[in-house]
Amino acid sequence: MSSAAAKPILYSYFRSSCSWRVRIALALKGIAYDVVPVNLLKDGGQQLAIIHYLEDTCPNPRLLPQDLKKRAQVRMIADHIVSGIQPLQNLSILKQMGEKKMEWAQNCIASGFQALEQTLQHTAGRYCVGDEVSMADLCLVPQVFNAERFKVDMGPYPTITRINKALLELEAFKVSHPSLQPDTPAELRA
Amino acid sequence: MSSAAAKPILYSYFRSSCSWRVRIALALKGIAYDVVPVNLLKDGGQQLAIIHYLEDTCPNPRLLPQDLKKRAQVRMIADHIVSGIQPLQNLSILKQMGEKKMEWAQNCIASGFQALEQTLQHTAGRYCVGDEVSMADLCLVPQVFNAERFKVDMGPYPTITRINKALLELEAFKVSHPSLQPDTPAELRA
Repeated sequence: MSSAAAKPILYSYFRSSCSWRVRIALALKGIAYDVVPVNLLKDGGQQLAIIHYLEDTCPNPRLLPQDLKKRAQVRMIADHIVSGIQPLQNLSILKQMGEKKMEWAQNCIASGFQALEQTLQHTAGRYCVGDEVSMADLCLVPQVFNAERFKVDMGPYPTITRINKALLELEAFKVSHPSLQPDTPAELRA
Repeated sequence: MSSAAAKPILYSYFRSSCSWRVRIALALKGIAYDVVPVNLLKDGGQQLAIIHYLEDTCPNPRLLPQDLKKRAQVRMIADHIVSGIQPLQNLSILKQMGEKKMEWAQNCIASGFQALEQTLQHTAGRYCVGDEVSMADLCLVPQVFNAERFKVDMGPYPTITRINKALLELEAFKVSHPSLQPDTPAELRA
């Protein structure tokens, strides 16, 4: 993202989970922005830095709880997804897996979701941590979307499934969805 | 880490870059702690949540700059290492690579360091971002240690090499070093 006194520009790729996280944050905070589509070769997890910058500069609504224990839980969940799951199934890694691509992605996501499901059983209310939308939720929804793309069986993850469904009903998660972006190919449009 | 009113306990593995990052933060903030060694099967990147918790509860010395642009730079660098490099060369991934283990780790680290070297040329002073030690530095040193373990040629990364050397002269980076932990095997002790 390029920030200026004027409207910020988001360099975005419709299907990137990193771009999507940032789009949700922008929508939640009500920040208008322009999109410059970028067809990513490399789909890293780094864009959480943008979300923290948005939190620092536009603290309302909060995406990190004030309660320190809850803050730590939010970060633990977000980091688990952003560092523990997403990098293992990104484009550059999958390319190197050749035929084993699908199986590799499924295993990475399943193993990450097993741990996540257990964590959420202790932290979740309506959303990942209690009843307020947080950075953890911004990370969850794009990761579940990836899981569905790779046809991961979501049966063993009822808590993840329930929270994902509740989040997808929120306006910020709808407008930022990969099926509705300027660079979404026609066949993938909602 | 388990926090209580009493001395915190760090569940640590001497060689884990995640544990090391936390040990540096604890040393910088002068927080006394007990170590319970854990021989990690899975070496995720999640432990950055602990560092943020330490920053929230013990803000001196700061590990995130007050200046918002510098904060974003610190997070960008930390996230690049924690999400973009480290997860690709952790234990559970390397196990699956079999004979290609060394080559895989070298390629992941080299490709990450190429991007990092360029970023640092814009952000670095004595350390990763300006002249103050930050979360970015906590992430850099353990990653360079991993690079050396995997015999990555550090020649193309003079800025990374220079900053790493300056950091290793600091007490907090020395006492937290993998060669000096309670669970360090005798043959790897400093």
